[in-house]
Amino acid sequence: MTPMKTGLLLAAGTLFLAGGASAQTIDDSALLEQATALFSPIPHMIPKINDNAVTKEKIELGRMLFFDPRLSSSHLLSCNTCHNLAMGGDDNLETSIGHGWQAGPRNAPTVYNAVLNVAQFWDGRAEDLKTQAKGPIQAGVEMNSRPDVVVATLKSMPEYVAHFDRAFPNEDDAVTFDNLARAIEAFEATLLTPASPFDQYLEGNTNAMTEPQKRGLKTFIDTGCIACHSGVNVGGQSYHPFGVVEQPGSDILPPDDKGRFSVTETATDQYVFRAPALRNVARTAPYFHSGRVWDLKQAVAVMGVSQLGEELNAQQVDDIVAFLTALNGEIPETVVPQLPASTADTPRPMPMDE
Amino acid sequence: MTPMKTGLLLAAGTLFLAGGASAQTIDDSALLEQATALFSPIPHMIPKINDNAVTKEKIELGRMLFFDPRLSSSHLLSCNTCHNLAMGGDDNLETSIGHGWQAGPRNAPTVYNAVLNVAQFWDGRAEDLKTQAKGPIQAGVEMNSRPDVVVATLKSMPEYVAHFDRAFPNEDDAVTFDNLARAIEAFEATLLTPASPFDQYLEGNTNAMTEPQKRGLKTFIDTGCIACHSGVNVGGQSYHPFGVVEQPGSDILPPDDKGRFSVTETATDQYVFRAPALRNVARTAPYFHSGRVWDLKQAVAVMGVSQLGEELNAQQVDDIVAFLTALNGEIPETVVPQLPASTADTPRPMPMDE
Repeated sequence: MTPMKTGLLLAAGTLFLAGGASAQTIDDSALLEQATALFSPIPHMIPKINDNAVTKEKIELGRMLFFDPRLSSSHLLSCNTCHNLAMGGDDNLETSIGHGWQAGPRNAPTVYNAVLNVAQFWDGRAEDLKTQAKGPIQAGVEMNSRPDVVVATLKSMPEYVAHFDRAFPNEDDAVTFDNLARAIEAFEATLLTPASPFDQYLEGNTNAMTEPQKRGLKTFIDTGCIACHSGVNVGGQSYHPFGVVEQPGSDILPPDDKGRFSVTETATDQYVFRAPALRNVARTAPYFHSGRVWDLKQAVAVMGVSQLGEELNAQQVDDIVAFLTALNGEIPETVVPQLPASTADTPRPMPMDE
Repeated sequence: MTPMKTGLLLAAGTLFLAGGASAQTIDDSALLEQATALFSPIPHMIPKINDNAVTKEKIELGRMLFFDPRLSSSHLLSCNTCHNLAMGGDDNLETSIGHGWQAGPRNAPTVYNAVLNVAQFWDGRAEDLKTQAKGPIQAGVEMNSRPDVVVATLKSMPEYVAHFDRAFPNEDDAVTFDNLARAIEAFEATLLTPASPFDQYLEGNTNAMTEPQKRGLKTFIDTGCIACHSGVNVGGQSYHPFGVVEQPGSDILPPDDKGRFSVTETATDQYVFRAPALRNVARTAPYFHSGRVWDLKQAVAVMGVSQLGEELNAQQVDDIVAFLTALNGEIPETVVPQLPASTADTPRPMPMDE
């Protein structure tokens, strides 16, 4: 294996040695001990957010903004268009469709549990969700709007102004693009999916996972998947080249997308991406930043070759996929918000203006 | 006034004579008596649907289908895209944006209370919501799919098959395009917005509407608006030429859309449309089948000239608009459904295939 950018490598190597045949009966107490050292359950409580105390008022406003297509210049596309809360928190497309039916450059990651990632976007260019939220609103291939238009839109509706005043009290001018981003971040921080079979297992209920799922967890640890996919979100914490050992073909790794290199301009960051969090991964096909692989089994096999330098056998792949389905958590219930009606002062939609 | 296609004309004429100055104090008992003869409150209960008993199981399935973008060939557009439950049940665009970013031909009507209309679409070409639901799914400028693809999509997901089996018990093959339409109709039948100020007024609470709203109601009756806009849905029941008295300009009435003529091929149906229901009209700008008028005041003034042959004065327009805002009902709470994940057998999205 080539060097990895994580301190977990040593641990993974050690566990390699301890790994054994995959069809044997699982020793729950040993596996649980390993697992709890590597992972932690999705919290039921909203985590602390840097520079953004999460209040009821911000969550409520953020939910409205998340569903409001008037944040796009066409008035058709909302955050929820590509991060669809009905479909695992993404759009289940290879790459998203944006303004003017343009194809976006990368697969949309899920918004569920995204608050637990170390940074946002496949290349980590946004340090948190409040920074992330501002990106797609302005991107020409996504929502194609501008901060001044968005602020004018929100200020045109007294009900929105009142919501901002409640969410950001004692501010002279609460309706700002920054505060919009904070409200969206606050809402998104509530989008946690706890209580998956794996979480319940981690909490000590050894009946919560099936035998194949437990075997898959063991294989996931023993083969070294945990080098990139560990922690509370089973990934999302560190950057790695796609192709640690062997680069996949250009069908899966398009040569023109150099990943984190475009952020850091460091040669070693070519084709480096943030390892995706694997929570709810069975709900978020297709896979990889290119979205080119639809089948979770194939995705696992590709990872074996490209990241581990190992052809996983059919049993290993099946077991890992079984384990990955155990990462499906309980989706929080979201009520469709009621958005204020546009007024005479609301900037009109510009669907045909590219 | 030219002949209208409603038995209400005579009543309207009579009321004309009884109408008086608009700024006088309202006699609630007289107005209430007039109003209850012309209108009825939005029901709190789901109405009986022809050939489609509304069950819990159908509603639940219909809610899933309503939000599922996989009913479109792109997997981007759902019923909720154009009939957005967060925005008054429509998309607040002049005409909808559909597959490939094509502009649709007419303004999307609200889905709220649509079950109470005599027929669906601006030209009434669908006799009910189950027939309507099949249209946009197949229309090339809307969702651009086909019944066989939709059925294959649904059958590829065991969770959907189970939902259909529960919603349509004892059927050999429950997953059909007809049953999909029935389930969507059942869900849409729940989208009633009762308890508006006007409904409360109709139920005898004379404090539920403001004085301007009451004056507006009286003006609405006295000037003859009720000839087309009466009944439970304040319209939606009958067909009328746009331009009973005077056709509006081609900016508002594009000459190439001849309305119901395309359904009946009867000369007198040229530029005839179903009078829209005015429930929640203040939430559903822009107006008319062309969506060319954004301001409700302007829409009321245009109606005065084109349908009544009368230049309504500023006071009358303001009062009528005040009354129309009293038609904003209570929007039912909708929880975002959780949709089953696609499987290996689910037909792939075809976003770029037109």
